[in-house]
Amino acid sequence: MKTFLACVPCFVHQTLSASCMATDDVDVQTKVMRKVLEELSAIDFSCSPPEMAKTVHSLIREISGNSDPYAEIKHEYNQKALLLYPQLKEEVRNSKNPLETAVRIAIAGNYIDFGAFPEIDEIILHEIIENTLHQELAVNDMSLFVDALDKAERIFYLADNSGEIVFDRILIEELGADRVTCAVRGFPVLNDVTMKDAVETGLTDIVKVIGNGGDFPGTVLSKCSDEFRDEFNKADLVISKGQGNYETLSSVKKNNLFFLLKVKCKVIADNMGYKTGGSIFMKA
Amino acid sequence: MKTFLACVPCFVHQTLSASCMATDDVDVQTKVMRKVLEELSAIDFSCSPPEMAKTVHSLIREISGNSDPYAEIKHEYNQKALLLYPQLKEEVRNSKNPLETAVRIAIAGNYIDFGAFPEIDEIILHEIIENTLHQELAVNDMSLFVDALDKAERIFYLADNSGEIVFDRILIEELGADRVTCAVRGFPVLNDVTMKDAVETGLTDIVKVIGNGGDFPGTVLSKCSDEFRDEFNKADLVISKGQGNYETLSSVKKNNLFFLLKVKCKVIADNMGYKTGGSIFMKA
Repeated sequence: MKTFLACVPCFVHQTLSASCMATDDVDVQTKVMRKVLEELSAIDFSCSPPEMAKTVHSLIREISGNSDPYAEIKHEYNQKALLLYPQLKEEVRNSKNPLETAVRIAIAGNYIDFGAFPEIDEIILHEIIENTLHQELAVNDMSLFVDALDKAERIFYLADNSGEIVFDRILIEELGADRVTCAVRGFPVLNDVTMKDAVETGLTDIVKVIGNGGDFPGTVLSKCSDEFRDEFNKADLVISKGQGNYETLSSVKKNNLFFLLKVKCKVIADNMGYKTGGSIFMKA
Repeated sequence: MKTFLACVPCFVHQTLSASCMATDDVDVQTKVMRKVLEELSAIDFSCSPPEMAKTVHSLIREISGNSDPYAEIKHEYNQKALLLYPQLKEEVRNSKNPLETAVRIAIAGNYIDFGAFPEIDEIILHEIIENTLHQELAVNDMSLFVDALDKAERIFYLADNSGEIVFDRILIEELGADRVTCAVRGFPVLNDVTMKDAVETGLTDIVKVIGNGGDFPGTVLSKCSDEFRDEFNKADLVISKGQGNYETLSSVKKNNLFFLLKVKCKVIADNMGYKTGGSIFMKA
């Protein structure tokens, strides 16, 4: 998916938030902002938004000298999500359709996205969990998913954000962790999940986790590691979480590729044809 | 007041909104955005936000070839506000303190600001009117205002936005229109009020209205017309509406200068020390 003009204010917001998290030095924050604005003035709109976001966040890290501005917030939301884990497991346990409940929980967790939102409101998070569990999904390819799942020997789960990864864990446990490999970002970018978060949330204890080799907040296949691409190609079923993975994989040809996400901005809403706030469980 | 780093995303949002209103041609919108980003990358933060906004909106008008991108929206909100006028007058008529009610109505109208918000929600507008009429103001210098008003022979009313001007009319009528001169922007910028809007809403029928000679969304005294400055200097009482006028006049020395506004962004909230959403009726 290409970058749209409406993505630009979002990159500028991310620059403000990330530079303020990266350093308290207003002069450095200002230097970051000036450089990002200069870079954005020459933006190549044919790139996907995560490719542009990589450029923006690389500049923020480089100029601020902070290799992981979102480190604190990632830890905070991993811990908050871990506190929710027992309650979410209980939802699955009490459900008449545990698989669909686990899918819905994984989609709800996609709200924890500091790329789309400058702040995550915990009251809203709880409302989103509740709504996503009980309201109609904008797209629900559950029957196609169940078919693919029945035959799948290798499942590749492309995670998205910290905190959200705990919600993903619920779904991974329903899928059967022994046939799942989970991918995280190779290096820090935004609040996207890395190996550190997979370890912190105990995901590495139940499933094989690999880094994708990149620092894009999405999956730019050509820039991923050989190990990642090999796993992607061999998988019978791929679960792609979140907007960033959708933006970078929506035109990739792959059997049994499923997108699970919350529609969080007007650009994605217009591109997909669904409303902001909608829950997507869609076969590519 | 200087421009802060947190103003930058707002300028970029305005660029997106204004360029989309100015033209349907995505290439032109893109050209506008690139040029504004380039300009912002060299921003002089010692300028006030309205001075920077003038630069941004001049570029938008110049590159798009549309001399008034907000023309339609200004007309729309003038008409919507005129529909509210009888009900707002009724509020004043039924009030135990008609002057304070009129002040509160004028402050409520300051919500209609397409610089601060990409959209104006009519349900929220009605809630804001209701809340501003009945809730405590963050600053309420009413007694100082009444003192100044009792002695004032020349009142200068600096209007802010289209639509809002109808709310101002209510207050101007309470002040006694014969001693009031009202100022509007000299040329279109954002949805700020111009002579066209003063005529459309009937303000010119009840009070003398002058343009300020500039196209800043605020009052940059050094760039205003001689007529405006003369009126400003001679006035016994000046009423300054909105954030833009506050940002450009907050450090000006003038007796009996009163700021009436809604706090609409974090930058102003931090600068003034009040919460976003707060209603300000403050003697300078």
